[in-house]
Amino acid sequence: MAKEVTKRAENYSQWYNDLVVKADLAEQSAVRGCMVIKPYGYAIWEKMQGALDAMFKQTGVQNAYFPLFIPKSFFSREAEHVAGFAKECAVVTHHRLMNDPDGKGIVVDPTAKLEEELIVRPTSETIIWSTYKNWITSWRDLPILCNQWCNVVRWEMRTRLFLRTAEFLWQEGHTAHATAEEAQERTRQMVDIYARFAREVMALPVVVGHKSPNERFAGALDTLTIEAMMQDGKALQAGTSHFLGQNFAKSFDVQFTDKDGSRQYVWATSWGLSTRMMGALIMAHGDDAGLVLPPDLAPIRVVMVPIYKTEEEHSAILDKMYELKKALEALGHSVKVDDRDTLRPGFKFAEWELKGVPVRIAMGPRDLQNGTAEVSRRDTLTKETVGIDGLDRYVDALMGAIRKNIYDKADAFREANVRKCDDWNEFKEKIKEGGFLLCHWDGTPETEQAIKDETKATIRCIPIDSFVCEEEGKCIYSGKPSHRRVIFAISY
Amino acid sequence: MAKEVTKRAENYSQWYNDLVVKADLAEQSAVRGCMVIKPYGYAIWEKMQGALDAMFKQTGVQNAYFPLFIPKSFFSREAEHVAGFAKECAVVTHHRLMNDPDGKGIVVDPTAKLEEELIVRPTSETIIWSTYKNWITSWRDLPILCNQWCNVVRWEMRTRLFLRTAEFLWQEGHTAHATAEEAQERTRQMVDIYARFAREVMALPVVVGHKSPNERFAGALDTLTIEAMMQDGKALQAGTSHFLGQNFAKSFDVQFTDKDGSRQYVWATSWGLSTRMMGALIMAHGDDAGLVLPPDLAPIRVVMVPIYKTEEEHSAILDKMYELKKALEALGHSVKVDDRDTLRPGFKFAEWELKGVPVRIAMGPRDLQNGTAEVSRRDTLTKETVGIDGLDRYVDALMGAIRKNIYDKADAFREANVRKCDDWNEFKEKIKEGGFLLCHWDGTPETEQAIKDETKATIRCIPIDSFVCEEEGKCIYSGKPSHRRVIFAISY
Repeated sequence: MAKEVTKRAENYSQWYNDLVVKADLAEQSAVRGCMVIKPYGYAIWEKMQGALDAMFKQTGVQNAYFPLFIPKSFFSREAEHVAGFAKECAVVTHHRLMNDPDGKGIVVDPTAKLEEELIVRPTSETIIWSTYKNWITSWRDLPILCNQWCNVVRWEMRTRLFLRTAEFLWQEGHTAHATAEEAQERTRQMVDIYARFAREVMALPVVVGHKSPNERFAGALDTLTIEAMMQDGKALQAGTSHFLGQNFAKSFDVQFTDKDGSRQYVWATSWGLSTRMMGALIMAHGDDAGLVLPPDLAPIRVVMVPIYKTEEEHSAILDKMYELKKALEALGHSVKVDDRDTLRPGFKFAEWELKGVPVRIAMGPRDLQNGTAEVSRRDTLTKETVGIDGLDRYVDALMGAIRKNIYDKADAFREANVRKCDDWNEFKEKIKEGGFLLCHWDGTPETEQAIKDETKATIRCIPIDSFVCEEEGKCIYSGKPSHRRVIFAISY
Repeated sequence: MAKEVTKRAENYSQWYNDLVVKADLAEQSAVRGCMVIKPYGYAIWEKMQGALDAMFKQTGVQNAYFPLFIPKSFFSREAEHVAGFAKECAVVTHHRLMNDPDGKGIVVDPTAKLEEELIVRPTSETIIWSTYKNWITSWRDLPILCNQWCNVVRWEMRTRLFLRTAEFLWQEGHTAHATAEEAQERTRQMVDIYARFAREVMALPVVVGHKSPNERFAGALDTLTIEAMMQDGKALQAGTSHFLGQNFAKSFDVQFTDKDGSRQYVWATSWGLSTRMMGALIMAHGDDAGLVLPPDLAPIRVVMVPIYKTEEEHSAILDKMYELKKALEALGHSVKVDDRDTLRPGFKFAEWELKGVPVRIAMGPRDLQNGTAEVSRRDTLTKETVGIDGLDRYVDALMGAIRKNIYDKADAFREANVRKCDDWNEFKEKIKEGGFLLCHWDGTPETEQAIKDETKATIRCIPIDSFVCEEEGKCIYSGKPSHRRVIFAISY
């Protein structure tokens, strides 16, 4: 096998990189920190987009598109936001190139300097709220529920494919409301959609919770998050939804006339989920043989590999396979018949395992004779001989079982790696092993910062829909009273 | 009516701008030349994307994603390409902002200057061919058929919503082939898809043809185009497909080992269609009442407006409408019941006409009594009273009639504005009136340039699938012999 992947136990980080590249998901580009998303990886992202987009639209959200560039001055408007986002970013200063007067290629034309620099959007609150100002006059114009699918750029110093790249793809939703309550409900509704998407489509157990003030989005009054556990026990923030209060409305002077005639600032939310989710998918489910895809995200759900010696056998088996392909496609499953005649079955098996195809069907001359096929599951790496009669319905049912098993496996892993911890020395030991530690915390940013400085662990969230955390206790670090546990972990 | 649109006959250009803004399609943003695509406009673009994307995939094309930024040096690699694209573009020179030491907001951090400037992609041939170099070793790796949906930036000095904006959205396909023939076939195949999309989905008659050398894509050996005629008689280039020969393969040293063991440069195509198509849609079909949408691109195909005096009537009519909505949705038509109780029917009628909704159904108390409804067609602005029984099937059939009528109308307009012209003085007169002039041309860039300088007209294309142009004659400008006519027009 040409494409061997490092074992997880050997080097988890290398395993991840190997998998991303060798399963043809993405690769580094010639531009520092920017990735190329390859067709197979992009096909998975398209499936994520399709599922999420439909969920958004069911709640009345509409897609729109706002400019890539943001005038520099916009960032100064919201004080916290500038601190959080205007640091490392791509700055456009000129709008023309010219031939080098010395004849050495092309250079920036110094006369084409922009009056005001433009920032490539790291997130679009500022440009969107400057636009909403023109859209909102009265309570009748509210709510506004816009989303955009786009690219954003954050000039990260250390990058990793999908997890942290200078440019990444995402969706960012931006809503405008007449009341704080409505905006808060929307904030919660969207994080719940992210959780449902993670659980049902990605087979990924996640915790929904509030971020601590230290970890909030720059400019938000509250940030809700979904947090997932990777196989090395680290946490991964997989989607966030922010209640922005009236901060952006005040910065861009967006007011509306309420039913009672009074002028009010508009209430805002924003929420985003990115190609980082591709990293979560890989790290939560993958194994030493490669990617493991839940059926709903698999560009190919079933791959068929013929096993033959003669051309006659090959063609007879292919006939049977194309017949079965048709039946499976009628049930909504995407199927690939791997009829390449230059590669051996073993090579093909390994390749499709690497790419995480949920079900493989192999058929040889004896199968043809017996009316059987060999059905292999990617999630369990088990094989069964199944009669060809009714094989379509068998595979159809198998998809549900695979989906459930992938989720259950990840959930069992998480359960095994969540523990309560009430002792600071134990905390310092245990946190190194990975996993979530449910601890009491005194609620102060100082304590959170001190714990981070000593252990690199942060509060991933204050859970609201998982684990029983409501209980009296004492802060693991300061010993001060606490009313509930929070999740500490080392994170990506 | 608050939202009156300028009449076409009064000021065609103002009519266009009014329509774009008042039908809620797009607007200028705070960033020079960059537009905001509003939800209604974006919903139409999504329908264009959906239809095209499916057509691409049917031919084996896969989506992928390549970086937004291109190193400056890449542009110098392909000599013609740099001349065509590296002129007016957005140049990223720095990667950090900092607080102004003088306390006046934020400034660019001078220490964060990039070693090599990055160009925001105006088109992606260079970055993609630098990537393909890693993907291609042998003939087995070919063809590569990638497409990406993305944003691009060309620093246009004079911009118009959709037609010419600094940032726009598009798809760009980039294919790699083992032979010139295969690449040429793909070039043709993709322009034919554009033509089919224009004709069938957009109800837009287009001519397929070759660009003259002057109008070719920078770096191409051949450019195929679809050209449409707008209602002011001007031509609009609506999609192009380029045969790039081995130019980019040579610039980025992309070779493959052929079946016979020899090393060969790879053959390339690229093809793109952009949000400019939104401009074509508006200008080809719109009228003085607003947008006219072909059913396949209409976010809402049927709008229902209740007419009532009492609350009782309102609710009885709405009941009937929701019932009909369900039946129409089952037939695949999107329906909106406009149940806003603060607006009068006349206002609603005008609003949905402005937005180009193909069919409007109004129902009043008398209709309810008689079992009828008033059905209005947007394309013809005609009304009919139709029985509610079977109304769903009536409307279903109507969609086909509307699609055909919109196409036929545009086609008749074009036919009326295409003429042969063999006299230079007549040419100079006629070209001002708009329309396509089919003329003989001596095939030289000099003649084309001279004609452009004198009249602003360019060769839109050398048609290959429309009009009978193959005949002997003399160049309209130089009098030299010519074997076929070409299309001259003033263009957007």
